[in-house]
Amino acid sequence: MKTVNLDYTAATPVDEKVLETMLPFFREHFGNPSSGHSLGEIPREALEEARVKVGRLIGAEESGKDKIIFTASASESNNLAVKGIVAAGKRKGNRIITSAIEHFSILNQLKSLEKEGFEVVKLPVDKYGLISPDQLKEAVNDQTILVSIQAANTEIGTIQPLKELAAIAKDQGIPFHSDATAAAGWIPLNVEQLGVDMLSLAGDQFYGPKGSGALFVRRGVRLRPLIEGGIQEKGLRAGTENVPVIVGLGEAARLAHNSMSERSEQVASFRDKLKESLFNEVPHLHLNGHPEKRLPWNLNVSVEFVEGEALLMRLNMEGIYVSSGSSCTSQALKSSHVLDAIGLPPELAQGSLLLAAGLKSREEDIPYITEKMAEVASLLRMMSPLYHQYLKEAKNNANVQ
Amino acid sequence: MKTVNLDYTAATPVDEKVLETMLPFFREHFGNPSSGHSLGEIPREALEEARVKVGRLIGAEESGKDKIIFTASASESNNLAVKGIVAAGKRKGNRIITSAIEHFSILNQLKSLEKEGFEVVKLPVDKYGLISPDQLKEAVNDQTILVSIQAANTEIGTIQPLKELAAIAKDQGIPFHSDATAAAGWIPLNVEQLGVDMLSLAGDQFYGPKGSGALFVRRGVRLRPLIEGGIQEKGLRAGTENVPVIVGLGEAARLAHNSMSERSEQVASFRDKLKESLFNEVPHLHLNGHPEKRLPWNLNVSVEFVEGEALLMRLNMEGIYVSSGSSCTSQALKSSHVLDAIGLPPELAQGSLLLAAGLKSREEDIPYITEKMAEVASLLRMMSPLYHQYLKEAKNNANVQ
Repeated sequence: MKTVNLDYTAATPVDEKVLETMLPFFREHFGNPSSGHSLGEIPREALEEARVKVGRLIGAEESGKDKIIFTASASESNNLAVKGIVAAGKRKGNRIITSAIEHFSILNQLKSLEKEGFEVVKLPVDKYGLISPDQLKEAVNDQTILVSIQAANTEIGTIQPLKELAAIAKDQGIPFHSDATAAAGWIPLNVEQLGVDMLSLAGDQFYGPKGSGALFVRRGVRLRPLIEGGIQEKGLRAGTENVPVIVGLGEAARLAHNSMSERSEQVASFRDKLKESLFNEVPHLHLNGHPEKRLPWNLNVSVEFVEGEALLMRLNMEGIYVSSGSSCTSQALKSSHVLDAIGLPPELAQGSLLLAAGLKSREEDIPYITEKMAEVASLLRMMSPLYHQYLKEAKNNANVQ
Repeated sequence: MKTVNLDYTAATPVDEKVLETMLPFFREHFGNPSSGHSLGEIPREALEEARVKVGRLIGAEESGKDKIIFTASASESNNLAVKGIVAAGKRKGNRIITSAIEHFSILNQLKSLEKEGFEVVKLPVDKYGLISPDQLKEAVNDQTILVSIQAANTEIGTIQPLKELAAIAKDQGIPFHSDATAAAGWIPLNVEQLGVDMLSLAGDQFYGPKGSGALFVRRGVRLRPLIEGGIQEKGLRAGTENVPVIVGLGEAARLAHNSMSERSEQVASFRDKLKESLFNEVPHLHLNGHPEKRLPWNLNVSVEFVEGEALLMRLNMEGIYVSSGSSCTSQALKSSHVLDAIGLPPELAQGSLLLAAGLKSREEDIPYITEKMAEVASLLRMMSPLYHQYLKEAKNNANVQ
């Protein structure tokens, strides 16, 4: 059976070049970077080289006093950033500002912090998923200890005006964190130009290995570690460093940095052609997210009158792999908080599909995807009571005219 | 130059068989286990297979309601166990009981909890590093929310009477956690027979990959996650699962389980012959830890009148890689809290060396190790004011007699 993967945001494979750099660190260079003897030397140097490469991807190379802390996932980076600021307690106050469309690794910990007495302000977004700098300006006060706003949204691809948002926090001396998991490796991110104080990313979003996360921490930002113990990662994350995976993250960051414009153009070109084809051939289609301020790999559409999970299952039977939202929630079968936040009516939100292009997405597959999508959507629509009601109303309206 | 690694506790290489099982999960089976489509299936099954294999290593196979939570290190497992119990707040009270010789990933978080108002009782140990069940019995009270005692000590190898210790906690309904990082894969551990409620381990101690940790959690033990977000790992650890590394941990656990007695006999035989040779040829040597209740790979000796770091450096120049204690502290250059706790005089504690055998340790290297150790110890002793004082006193004593 023909198979087409359109779910590269759930995971990218590891680039062969990345894997090659990792392999020696499972075998001969297996030493512990903390070792005082020679076996620790190459792993230790490899760690620092990876740190430089990750720094370069996000424009952190010039500032030697800033930190790149290696973690095991973007979720861990996000937890370290938020809980780390709260536990350090450098600023007095209990307000934390975020957006309504953050990933669950931000929102769920804030829910816990709310129970502990923190005041969490979730900024709303417009119909495209954009956060308004003016609303952030109104929300910050002298009790605000942290602002955490994503660089771009995984689900609908919308890219936020990060520089403007960060400047507002900076004006008040409030630390600004950004979850850049969906954006890193795909759009230029420069922590200096953006003025963010902390930034989370994960290698498995740009052809690095799973289990590879990082948190950029600007000089002067005080955090408490989540994982206490040894003095690894400047005391901010205990535990023997996962050298092969960190080396892989570094190499993936280097490759993404060096070929960012080519890669982005390539996936955007595929995505745009797929979008055009789908909108031409599949009726009752609706685009979610911003038409231009959008991650290059991201396409999110709602198929009216159709339930997304059913669509996913049927497409899966045709060898087309898509998701109905964040893979972290797909097993929870809840409706998407992101689509709720952009004000999408439930009947459209339920029929949403996230189509995530990757470097191996091929234009020659677009006719097959389109054909199957049209078939499956049509079949499911015929089974939909909502669609029959729509047809009836349309007919009545026609009769009236 | 000839090289001899005697620091396999800092890290083991990844077994080639283990690496082979991991490789397909970087490439073709790169899907996200949380995905609803076909690409998630094989990774999802592989995760569960790894869970069964890790369960089998620690005797958790029969109890389907118990959990094996995958983490990225033993340090993370230890933090999840302790902070997870504290945050869940199921039992009322503020006392936490541990031992004086735990790893820093236990002790340092307890230091933080002490600052928050918890009462931390560190049980003392005898000169061999053994914890007394009677002292635990005296320490537990109705305010005790957790007992955390290691299965065996990395540094001096002493194996604790875990079953007796756990029974005391169980009697009072207090959750009992054990950090089994140094022991898992090398000595039989059966969570049912031992009666422990939580147990931490890491794959890089038994030829699995770095970044592979696990926490066993018995049914009914309530924890709060350290890393909040998605619902991975039964809601106890958010973040995309590191499938290749978890698969590697599972395979390493299977191999360790299947060949535990052969492996243990092999490293113990090497260790015992090395010990005999060293004690025959190097004067002023002192064994640290228990003579019999001891991990098979562990040898810890103090060389009187000599400073351990200097010994480590000189041996390193001869291609012999040893450590002067836990690799998590070796860059901190502090004296070992474990050697302090067994009452070793500072002049002996400073001259301690941890010699950790591995599966590739070869008996034919023992003469070389012994020769170099004798040479280096003699050289450093000649430079030691303490040694000259000792010689003078010995001479005076001889004259008096």
